[in-house]
Amino acid sequence: MQIKHVSLPILFLILFVNSTFSQDRIEKWDVFEITLKGPSSGNPFVGTTLTGRFSNGDKVYEQDGYYDGNGVYKIRFMPDKEGTWTYLTSSNKRELENNKGSFECTSPSAKNHGPVKVRGSYHFQYEDGTPYYPFGTTIYEWPFQDAQTKARTVATLKSSPFNKVRFLAVPPYKDRYVEGPLKITVFPFEGTSRENWDFSRFNPEYFKNLDECMRKLRDLGVEADLILFRPYDKGKWGFDMAGQEVNRRFAQYMVARYAAFRNVWWSLANENSFIRNMNDNDWDELFQLVQQKDPYQHLRSIHNADRIYDYTKPWVTHVSYQYYNVVKAPFGTAILRDIYKKPVVNDEINYEGNIDSRWGQLSGEEMTFRFWNAIIGGGYATHGESYQASPWISNGGRLTGSSPARIAFLRKIVESNPVGGLEPIDHYYENNMAGKAGDYYLIYFGKDKMNRWDFVLPKRELATGVKFKADIIDTWNMTVTPLNKVFEVVPMPGNRYKFIDKNKSSIKMPGKPYMALRIRKIEDGAKVKDDGRHELE
Amino acid sequence: MQIKHVSLPILFLILFVNSTFSQDRIEKWDVFEITLKGPSSGNPFVGTTLTGRFSNGDKVYEQDGYYDGNGVYKIRFMPDKEGTWTYLTSSNKRELENNKGSFECTSPSAKNHGPVKVRGSYHFQYEDGTPYYPFGTTIYEWPFQDAQTKARTVATLKSSPFNKVRFLAVPPYKDRYVEGPLKITVFPFEGTSRENWDFSRFNPEYFKNLDECMRKLRDLGVEADLILFRPYDKGKWGFDMAGQEVNRRFAQYMVARYAAFRNVWWSLANENSFIRNMNDNDWDELFQLVQQKDPYQHLRSIHNADRIYDYTKPWVTHVSYQYYNVVKAPFGTAILRDIYKKPVVNDEINYEGNIDSRWGQLSGEEMTFRFWNAIIGGGYATHGESYQASPWISNGGRLTGSSPARIAFLRKIVESNPVGGLEPIDHYYENNMAGKAGDYYLIYFGKDKMNRWDFVLPKRELATGVKFKADIIDTWNMTVTPLNKVFEVVPMPGNRYKFIDKNKSSIKMPGKPYMALRIRKIEDGAKVKDDGRHELE
Repeated sequence: MQIKHVSLPILFLILFVNSTFSQDRIEKWDVFEITLKGPSSGNPFVGTTLTGRFSNGDKVYEQDGYYDGNGVYKIRFMPDKEGTWTYLTSSNKRELENNKGSFECTSPSAKNHGPVKVRGSYHFQYEDGTPYYPFGTTIYEWPFQDAQTKARTVATLKSSPFNKVRFLAVPPYKDRYVEGPLKITVFPFEGTSRENWDFSRFNPEYFKNLDECMRKLRDLGVEADLILFRPYDKGKWGFDMAGQEVNRRFAQYMVARYAAFRNVWWSLANENSFIRNMNDNDWDELFQLVQQKDPYQHLRSIHNADRIYDYTKPWVTHVSYQYYNVVKAPFGTAILRDIYKKPVVNDEINYEGNIDSRWGQLSGEEMTFRFWNAIIGGGYATHGESYQASPWISNGGRLTGSSPARIAFLRKIVESNPVGGLEPIDHYYENNMAGKAGDYYLIYFGKDKMNRWDFVLPKRELATGVKFKADIIDTWNMTVTPLNKVFEVVPMPGNRYKFIDKNKSSIKMPGKPYMALRIRKIEDGAKVKDDGRHELE
Repeated sequence: MQIKHVSLPILFLILFVNSTFSQDRIEKWDVFEITLKGPSSGNPFVGTTLTGRFSNGDKVYEQDGYYDGNGVYKIRFMPDKEGTWTYLTSSNKRELENNKGSFECTSPSAKNHGPVKVRGSYHFQYEDGTPYYPFGTTIYEWPFQDAQTKARTVATLKSSPFNKVRFLAVPPYKDRYVEGPLKITVFPFEGTSRENWDFSRFNPEYFKNLDECMRKLRDLGVEADLILFRPYDKGKWGFDMAGQEVNRRFAQYMVARYAAFRNVWWSLANENSFIRNMNDNDWDELFQLVQQKDPYQHLRSIHNADRIYDYTKPWVTHVSYQYYNVVKAPFGTAILRDIYKKPVVNDEINYEGNIDSRWGQLSGEEMTFRFWNAIIGGGYATHGESYQASPWISNGGRLTGSSPARIAFLRKIVESNPVGGLEPIDHYYENNMAGKAGDYYLIYFGKDKMNRWDFVLPKRELATGVKFKADIIDTWNMTVTPLNKVFEVVPMPGNRYKFIDKNKSSIKMPGKPYMALRIRKIEDGAKVKDDGRHELE
């Protein structure tokens, strides 16, 4: 968040009322922040309430504040409407009560499209209506690395295809986090070890680091899939055994502090069922707490391990899955859509890499294949990379795998489609086709080595005489080869489900794996030149 | 139901109290039936209540009776405990009230294992503990055919592998059901056409026919997967548009009449979402009604069309799915198990046949393949046959396809396994293996044409030195070829997940599709003769 301009009289006015500090102008969907001085005695993390009521016409939000240590309290607010907002604080502490103010919300800058929401049943868009297609990556511990590594991670992301990062709010237990110089930023609670944690007090230095990481991602235009809870404690710190009261307090603090970031997504947990002392009722409760406390209703999900959470529950906005088989064929993702009736993000599909653990041994080809399967199934996938020499999924740094370039290529194809979110077509029978029936077909052949593809489409939305053009896509070599040929469809004789090209055309394919076709309707009046080349047989 | 023996004094006594007629001895899980004379004026189907309270020690059941026309009321009860049962009726009609009696429940005969229940999370067993592995078939309209066809269906079932039949309580609209000589048995309601249905009165002739069909299946040892509601009305009869009040009354009557049959399963609907004027709340309500009214808690599910019901709901005992892709690979069924945490029966996987509709065009090979995939995925499947010359799925009669023999072969393999319900093994990574880790592995290669299989097993439950024997199974040609060789496992060098044979053995495979392997632990002391034949390389 940038403080753009603070005029002196307003600053004076605010300071006069209390030790408030805030901006007077902010663009839509940025963070407006109020700073208040208040009591520092006792334990302000527990028992002190602070809420801002923000109004602009018929828009009214209640946004909780949080204690930031040293007698400093803050309220962060994300205005989602242009014009004048006024606010008034309430608190159970006199010093924090009844602070008033106003600010101007200006139009968003070019790259600010607002938070991501669900579009329709199965896809996403930014709040300004721009489609958002998640192409995520996983960098679990990136906030807890040294400054140089973090800077390198940010630079890598900038030129990567990834527009969502999954990461842990609390790192896994590792000796270096206890012993290293960065330990002050690693623990959300006061203390340094299991012996002296104070789970009732948060560690402001930890959160300041996390603030900075959230801002960095936001400035890159990258969504932060922020994972609130995780196992991986190895019995060392006790963070996964702190009990539901601590869990509630932590979740509530996180929401108070980060909900105003337009790029936040709430991932309740990574591999939730590996936290053996928490059951689904506990997760339900935390979901509902986040749902209740987040004024902007950012996306909410949870990432499973060996007991799959019920993603049909109403507080879950989308499916965040770890189930590798789902992406071994396009129909897996399509089944999940039909079961959950929500967007499906395959957030863990194994990682490209060469480590001993089999979850980190995918080839670049296999990772790319799984991404394509997720897309053709009408959903999405998340990347990760685990080469021995470069543990991106843990620390970030540099990407060395071969899949990111192919994922970038796929993202371009997906984002350039003219029909919006890709829907599986005729998917109870066909398993390799997504797009929009009648208009746009992306057909993926996976590991099949096709020598030709007969021009046959499912009949839905087709009529005799509709014309199509086609491109051959090599998903691995990243080429798109347009065919200079027009296909005109007629019903397939003897088959009530299909249309074919009226000349019974086939498309010659190169007999290699990982090929796809893109077939697009030609609008009336548009022309495709047929130069007689022999791509067809 | 057979009346085994009615002694005259008891008969007299019962007749004296009211016009009651019932048996004095009945075997466990058979139908004990009380017949009462009562009012026939007005509409006894609506507003007359009749319930029997049956007690035997600490077992007490409330079983609703039903009106059977002509002033006759019945209560059917399924005793599930041997010994003396007493009963007492209550009613809002004086003539039906306060009927008392008792009978002896004797031990079940050899083929009577009781109703089928869920065993553990994913499998089934009869109430006496005998495992039940569903190998179902579909004969939607068999109760509504002429006597000869019905007899032929029963004879066919007798020598078939099928131990469950899915069929409709109400047939689809067809002209012949309106016009034919059998129409009296076709409609559950009084009337003959849309113009004169009385949805408040049931048609006893229809139900007497259904009674007989239920008995026939029970006597065969075949479970009746009785489908209460269906679309397929084509706007002709209005049975699918009668409204929820009629639906409730019909469901309640069906439960009162058939719950005492040990072989009944409640299938709330076929293709439920094609009944466009019913939503999931309606289905929830009907499920709960059946759950509340069935004293014996027979299995309950619903068969989906294009909107998948939420099978996690507590009143659903198992998954009854129509989603063909699920059975195109073993992992589909395994995913459903992990999502729903209930037994998965793929109740419609397309049908073997040659009709124009693509849902009825499977080869016998493909049907068999899909059955194996369901089993290897840790679930079950249901057969159907739709040859133009022999519409088994509609009418029954004779089976002409090639899959039933292979399904019989599969059933034998499944039923002879020593470990109970087959569980997918290492199924997040492996997709072709089910059984019980450490003891029993059924490995299915589907369409892969393997020339050899390296002896490699997932490490779970294995230890160095454990010995195994193996059989090659040709699932299409129905042969089991034991290998005269002992495999002794050791950890696989360089792989933390696998064990291999200590001699790095492979098994030579015939390079054909539809092959499987069965690998069984050799208990200490057991021996397998190695005659040096060259099945191994």
